[in-house]
Amino acid sequence: MSFVVVAQSMKFEQPLQLQSGASIRDYSLSYETYGTLNADKSNAVLICHALNASHHVAGEYADDPKNVGWWDTMIGPGKPVDTNQFFVIGVNNLGSCFGSTGPMHTHPDTGKVYGADFPVVTVEDWVNAQARLLDALGIEQLAAVMGGSLGGMQALSWTMQYPERVRHAVVVASAPNLTAENIAFNEVARRAIVTDPDFYEGHFYEHGVVPKRGLRIARMIGHITYLSDDVMNEKFGRELRSAVNSPTGYKYSTQDVEFQIESYLRYQGDKFSEYFDANTYLLITRALDYFDPARAFGGDLCAALARATCKFLLVSFTTDWRFSPARSREMVQGLIANGRDVSYAEIDAPHGHDAFLLEDARYLSVVRSYFDRMADGLNAGGAA
Amino acid sequence: MSFVVVAQSMKFEQPLQLQSGASIRDYSLSYETYGTLNADKSNAVLICHALNASHHVAGEYADDPKNVGWWDTMIGPGKPVDTNQFFVIGVNNLGSCFGSTGPMHTHPDTGKVYGADFPVVTVEDWVNAQARLLDALGIEQLAAVMGGSLGGMQALSWTMQYPERVRHAVVVASAPNLTAENIAFNEVARRAIVTDPDFYEGHFYEHGVVPKRGLRIARMIGHITYLSDDVMNEKFGRELRSAVNSPTGYKYSTQDVEFQIESYLRYQGDKFSEYFDANTYLLITRALDYFDPARAFGGDLCAALARATCKFLLVSFTTDWRFSPARSREMVQGLIANGRDVSYAEIDAPHGHDAFLLEDARYLSVVRSYFDRMADGLNAGGAA
Repeated sequence: MSFVVVAQSMKFEQPLQLQSGASIRDYSLSYETYGTLNADKSNAVLICHALNASHHVAGEYADDPKNVGWWDTMIGPGKPVDTNQFFVIGVNNLGSCFGSTGPMHTHPDTGKVYGADFPVVTVEDWVNAQARLLDALGIEQLAAVMGGSLGGMQALSWTMQYPERVRHAVVVASAPNLTAENIAFNEVARRAIVTDPDFYEGHFYEHGVVPKRGLRIARMIGHITYLSDDVMNEKFGRELRSAVNSPTGYKYSTQDVEFQIESYLRYQGDKFSEYFDANTYLLITRALDYFDPARAFGGDLCAALARATCKFLLVSFTTDWRFSPARSREMVQGLIANGRDVSYAEIDAPHGHDAFLLEDARYLSVVRSYFDRMADGLNAGGAA
Repeated sequence: MSFVVVAQSMKFEQPLQLQSGASIRDYSLSYETYGTLNADKSNAVLICHALNASHHVAGEYADDPKNVGWWDTMIGPGKPVDTNQFFVIGVNNLGSCFGSTGPMHTHPDTGKVYGADFPVVTVEDWVNAQARLLDALGIEQLAAVMGGSLGGMQALSWTMQYPERVRHAVVVASAPNLTAENIAFNEVARRAIVTDPDFYEGHFYEHGVVPKRGLRIARMIGHITYLSDDVMNEKFGRELRSAVNSPTGYKYSTQDVEFQIESYLRYQGDKFSEYFDANTYLLITRALDYFDPARAFGGDLCAALARATCKFLLVSFTTDWRFSPARSREMVQGLIANGRDVSYAEIDAPHGHDAFLLEDARYLSVVRSYFDRMADGLNAGGAA
């Protein structure tokens, strides 16, 4: 049983200038807060979410106790990010489909549902929108910004976009940009969605359909890249779902589920297609593709990171082949070259990229120690 | 300019019993032969193909000189598998779409196109069909059977199904079965095809359409797994196809091609969907999933391999994450434990799984040496 939380929403009427040149106005951000903001407002921690997560980071809703926050192992009273010490903020990003303004909402200029006309948003745009939320909450400076995967990219971007507003950044299972292979997987998923006849060029809402075929394929591809080969073999191996009476146990069918791994992937795909928005999937994978802070510095990550002034904790997982430890080490090296204060933990975990969401004693203890030291600093009266 | 070859076809009227319990009759196999069968018929080499290849292994057609065989770097006069020494046979597998009987042909029982009713075929079935072709060609024993990837599985299976008919097996970039991750990628590709509205449950031929959307996605997924992360980064990296005049060069679009890797994958997908049969794709990926010679021995590969009596050359490539060197080492260990004569080369090549089709000096020289020694034995009068 976790603690009870309440989702909130903040409306922003003024246009937000986007990196693409477009802007968006009259938008809302859904968010949640846990713990208490201290008197000098120095204990705020912002949590940034990845692809299919939301502002519901921890705790549970009074009327929906099964809906536990996606990082509940990490955040809460007495957890590694202790809400008895810190005021934690979770925010759903612009363009997502969990409450904040997204493609399924009405464009204030046209009175029609955005659909494919929702502007392309980037990691930098999300950070700007998050900064506005902090302004509205009266928070000048964060004790820490933290995120895993795409959330880690946002945390990293905070340190370069608003160096004076961040004291610590915790960047987990992330990367300073996507590799060609990462982009390739995103592209296949997007093509599956876009070529689904029910996509209607992004305006499926008015046709009363959902491109579920494409969403299922997208999710299946994603799932493969979240897990390690090892953990898949351990969990599923070559186990059959229901062996039949043949010398091999095989049904000999090209379309029926034969192996457990197939059953698992189909289930994950079906479930995802019931709740996730297709246009959001395109927007969020594109934000991943586009993130590349070194780009404006001729590919020099070290030069890009020179803007950051805060302290860092980076964490990676040995079996994560989506955002491998080598990618975290690139960031660590860039920060060290700039003389920054960096802690780095490479956790030997079998679960692949998914490890950042799972309970792993060493991982949680690394984060706990880091935040405990931060809390000690706060309680000593300084801004740790 | 390569040598000129001619495609041939052999009709088989008698039913071939399949592993599933079904059988198939009145089928044809397309094949090609290069070089000359010697007097004692001891210099025959059978080449087995992988997913989207065919009997057109080497050389070119007189009327279509651009259509060069898929393993032309490996096989031909003076090549590592020297057709001045060996009589090489390439055969298109049952269920494929390059000439041998497949789902697009007519079922002799119903007079209708097979479509989804084409029987499920396995690696073992293909080997049995190949053995019948050798019978028809009057070849009792092969000097060698050779293949890469799925072709390597067939070569391996030959040594266990017909140990007395094989003197050497050359198994390149292969595995003794698929991992859960391998099956997972196959399953996503199959779901993309099967859920394409133009698939019509496998009977799309009569509707005059082709499930191209699904085939494109299937091929894009395949292509990602054929290449290494490194070679993708080297070839494409984060390069844009056509940078626009914005600070980042990005167009900021979720659907337009932005990165070179996207353009490459879309092109590969489009090309594939023009020529490959959707039902064949299902059949061949299922044959891959099902192959598991250890299965009948309680998962004991060593016990399965005890049936093999020939000599072996195995080759793997360091950056092949589809069929990693570790999978080849499993086979090597199983063979050594059985006291078999095994040569093994792990080639340090950057190209991932695709390396087995590419020109790599060390790789080609390993195969050349192996076949040269075989040829010496033949010329000395013995059956090397």
